[in-house]
Amino acid sequence: MSVSISILATGSELLDGRVVDTNSNFVARELSDLGIKLKRVLLVDDDMQELVTGLEQLKSVSDVVITSGGLGPTDDDLTRYLIAKFFGVGLAENPDARKHLEEFYQKRGRALDATNLKQALLPIGSTMIPNEFGTAPGFMMQTKEGVTVCSLSGVPREFKSMYANSVAPIIKERSRGAPRLLRVTFKTFGLPESFVGRLVASLKLPSEIVVSYRAAFPEVHVVLKALESFSALDHYAAKVRDVLGVECIYSQDPLVSFVESVQELLIARSATVATAESCTGGMLGEMLTRTPGSSGVYRGGIVAYHNDLKEGLLGVSRDILETFGAVSAQTVESMARAVSARCKASFGLSVSGVAGPDGGSEDKPVGTFFIGIASPNGVTSMRCLYPSERGNVRTYAAYVALDCLRRSLQGIALPNSLPILSRE
Amino acid sequence: MSVSISILATGSELLDGRVVDTNSNFVARELSDLGIKLKRVLLVDDDMQELVTGLEQLKSVSDVVITSGGLGPTDDDLTRYLIAKFFGVGLAENPDARKHLEEFYQKRGRALDATNLKQALLPIGSTMIPNEFGTAPGFMMQTKEGVTVCSLSGVPREFKSMYANSVAPIIKERSRGAPRLLRVTFKTFGLPESFVGRLVASLKLPSEIVVSYRAAFPEVHVVLKALESFSALDHYAAKVRDVLGVECIYSQDPLVSFVESVQELLIARSATVATAESCTGGMLGEMLTRTPGSSGVYRGGIVAYHNDLKEGLLGVSRDILETFGAVSAQTVESMARAVSARCKASFGLSVSGVAGPDGGSEDKPVGTFFIGIASPNGVTSMRCLYPSERGNVRTYAAYVALDCLRRSLQGIALPNSLPILSRE
Repeated sequence: MSVSISILATGSELLDGRVVDTNSNFVARELSDLGIKLKRVLLVDDDMQELVTGLEQLKSVSDVVITSGGLGPTDDDLTRYLIAKFFGVGLAENPDARKHLEEFYQKRGRALDATNLKQALLPIGSTMIPNEFGTAPGFMMQTKEGVTVCSLSGVPREFKSMYANSVAPIIKERSRGAPRLLRVTFKTFGLPESFVGRLVASLKLPSEIVVSYRAAFPEVHVVLKALESFSALDHYAAKVRDVLGVECIYSQDPLVSFVESVQELLIARSATVATAESCTGGMLGEMLTRTPGSSGVYRGGIVAYHNDLKEGLLGVSRDILETFGAVSAQTVESMARAVSARCKASFGLSVSGVAGPDGGSEDKPVGTFFIGIASPNGVTSMRCLYPSERGNVRTYAAYVALDCLRRSLQGIALPNSLPILSRE
Repeated sequence: MSVSISILATGSELLDGRVVDTNSNFVARELSDLGIKLKRVLLVDDDMQELVTGLEQLKSVSDVVITSGGLGPTDDDLTRYLIAKFFGVGLAENPDARKHLEEFYQKRGRALDATNLKQALLPIGSTMIPNEFGTAPGFMMQTKEGVTVCSLSGVPREFKSMYANSVAPIIKERSRGAPRLLRVTFKTFGLPESFVGRLVASLKLPSEIVVSYRAAFPEVHVVLKALESFSALDHYAAKVRDVLGVECIYSQDPLVSFVESVQELLIARSATVATAESCTGGMLGEMLTRTPGSSGVYRGGIVAYHNDLKEGLLGVSRDILETFGAVSAQTVESMARAVSARCKASFGLSVSGVAGPDGGSEDKPVGTFFIGIASPNGVTSMRCLYPSERGNVRTYAAYVALDCLRRSLQGIALPNSLPILSRE
């Protein structure tokens, strides 16, 4: 049985632009795992007339309505009054809610005053929803027609935990018997999103498989979903894997990031890496040290932003810099070789490029960059062009560098160009 | 005259969680500059019944309804049919829209097919809204009751430009005579958000001033807004400036970032900086090279992630490392001194700390870090504790380092501790 779920989000801060409503997106993602699509999301101001109208409108098309916000102690927190009015009941102090409040304030050495005590008032006949991270408990109540109304805190951390602990089980129960969804994820780098879309479309997958794309610049993630009863998902997933190309898929684990996939390869080979950066200014090192345990694979690096430091700190010869320029294969190869030696790392990774907006030339326009990689097998490099704004050029260059390292560790050849726009 | 404006956002991707609706927040922020709060935001699926119901509900409480999405060429793009049905009119090919489509495809060397031509169909009697960044033009139409319905593309970049060029002027016209808002911005670093709130609250500002806070970790921005007719805004803004403290306000220009404010000070003093990083792994260098023209102030840096590289690349003596440890005042001072000399910079900035989750000790728990700064006047350092998760500790440490540089350039003493939780 499919369940219809809507969200009523309240709060001035949502309508005057101070805050983006992310709670609805959180619920939408959670529901999508159950194969349920949210019915409606409505954002209204802290105004009783608006709240009542909104709740009426959502109730008429939903099995479950989740309200977000308006549970605090101040005058514009109206949700408890809304629910009481909507169900035609009064408010009463809930002993558990009061106890929770007393403990919360005591732990912080603060006194509990009359204003705060308002948060222990719950609509009569409702069930309390505990709030482990904040003061205001929520509550839920069912209409005669069987619509469940759940009122949660609007603070994202509190909302999420209240949803997971108290609302999700109800939705799971109400959707019991609804078919389960299976999914296969492909996390890719190196192919533009539109190209990924065309590649997958060319397979003419059966309608039982729902394909969704997520562009998390500069990565593209593809997710295939199908009902558990559809037995051919793996068969078609293998086709998708082939058409995208194993060399562009860095992981099929939704929880592994691009950098982590590279780190895992380094760990598996007991290898270490050092970085020599110019246009990325330290981004490559920052990425390689994001996760705990980075010290096992990352040695350190040199940011040779100025050309004289490419000579001074990395020993790139003046001859190379003058003959080929700082943005050249010769320079990045020299940088990669030097940094792996100076940092005593098995791999040296280097980047030098024109991030823009200035500094481009006819021969090397903005977006041109070179990646150098020194490995136990020797030194090589790659020229790329990614014309975009400064921030994107830098991020893209750092990704390409990590991708070169990944390919080197996996024994995959470097591509002729990135992004990959054709496949022979 | 105040205008009531609502948004109807359509698209499966909003309700299954793939995409967060940011267009509504964009409009909310734009309107807040005019002193207008959005009336309602409704997200519905690409379903004709839902769309018609939603539009009816919003129309009944709004002067202007903006629809977002559903203008593309595929079967689930229903907005043009919705508007035609809603107004009881047919669709007709708009010559300007067709010309725009032909040019758009010609420029990209692609053929215009029948599916794409659907995008030139506009409700009869509507006015076209040009779309400079995409294929699908929008349109607007007025009901008998005087409600304006504007249909825009859902792609954020297209939505924003269509809103700015075609919808904003109409709203401005309709709200003509509404009083203008003045605003004063304070961008701060070093004070926790709740502390900032208490400081401002202690001033008991008159109700004519609306205060809003925005936490953009680890910065806190305070905005004071008042009607143009309220003449005392500057008077109270000076009080806010005093209570926050000039040393914590890095800029009053809403458009200047923290790093840019530091770079401006370096440029004004013809000074340069070099970085020596450990736990931040290159983040400091990445931040200092984000904006064009960074090469005028940033020389380069060394990421000495492993301790032996603190010795090998920066010459920190083994004696210091063994006696005081890698996370110590002695080490960061030595790092700062060395990097300014090796990179030939007027300032050397260094960071070493325990970013966690492992590596903490009783003496130096996770979140402990030291900042070193070498300037033409000598070398100094600062010890900080910011217990948080790894990513936050690193970002906070990089900010403190830049803040030390800012204070040094402005001749402000380094604080005794950060975040600042009391003021004598």
